[in-house]
Amino acid sequence: MLRAASRVPDHGKRTPFRFLRIEGDARLSLGERIAARSRARDPDASDSVIEKDRLRFMFAPTIVTVIARLGPDEKIPEQERLLTTGCVCFALLQAAQALGFGAQWLTGWVAYDPQIRTLLGIGDDEVVAGFIHIGTAQCEAPERERPDPVALLTDWTPE
Amino acid sequence: MLRAASRVPDHGKRTPFRFLRIEGDARLSLGERIAARSRARDPDASDSVIEKDRLRFMFAPTIVTVIARLGPDEKIPEQERLLTTGCVCFALLQAAQALGFGAQWLTGWVAYDPQIRTLLGIGDDEVVAGFIHIGTAQCEAPERERPDPVALLTDWTPE
Repeated sequence: MLRAASRVPDHGKRTPFRFLRIEGDARLSLGERIAARSRARDPDASDSVIEKDRLRFMFAPTIVTVIARLGPDEKIPEQERLLTTGCVCFALLQAAQALGFGAQWLTGWVAYDPQIRTLLGIGDDEVVAGFIHIGTAQCEAPERERPDPVALLTDWTPE
Repeated sequence: MLRAASRVPDHGKRTPFRFLRIEGDARLSLGERIAARSRARDPDASDSVIEKDRLRFMFAPTIVTVIARLGPDEKIPEQERLLTTGCVCFALLQAAQALGFGAQWLTGWVAYDPQIRTLLGIGDDEVVAGFIHIGTAQCEAPERERPDPVALLTDWTPE
């Protein structure tokens, strides 16, 4: 699954990404720390908010954190390396679904919080592109509204 | 093809992208302007460099410019909207290839140059995620080295 996900457009072959797996008991350990951090961020948070944060990684057996590595690069713009990493997330969703799993790309405040980043070992020049939750789907994902591509299309013409 | 490409992960259903098609005679018109801009950027550029820029959009009959729209948003981080747009590029490549076309995601200095951006009508809060060149493949794309996913994977453990 990770092999398929690693097969992405990658200008300059930088491999500007890595995977951090969260699985088994580590999921609840992480959730407890996230809940504590959530409480510290907002002492007035309701119990249900804290509980939601505690159980954040309990809905699927495996979560693959896809991390962009964006250190200095003389040739390839950071934007392109970030987009490569986003493609990894997308390809991982597709690979999981092709194998019959359910999969969901989630972020939320935990992807950006400095303390959670430290807890996950995210470096200063790294960003969390997404948490890809992978498991057995409990129901069919409802179809969502999709954009009308015709409305998004224009043609370039010389003025 | 654009319908398939528009079917991407999109946090908050922002549709943070649009398509600008460059096709037919517009390709060389654009190339002439790019060549002039290339000469202005570097008066010492060799003729072959200028010629390469002039013919930049002549290798495929259709080029779809995928543009991220990154205006202010209270809820969805810019990073996530940019990644959605990158997924559009990737999905467009996949859709084109699934239909038997060859397709390539290119950027280069023209994606970032202020004057070319203006020429293409790219807004201040927009960025070019990629030019997707679509046509009939003249040869099989050579396989490239791919990363070893095992080397990219670690497990999170509570310290």
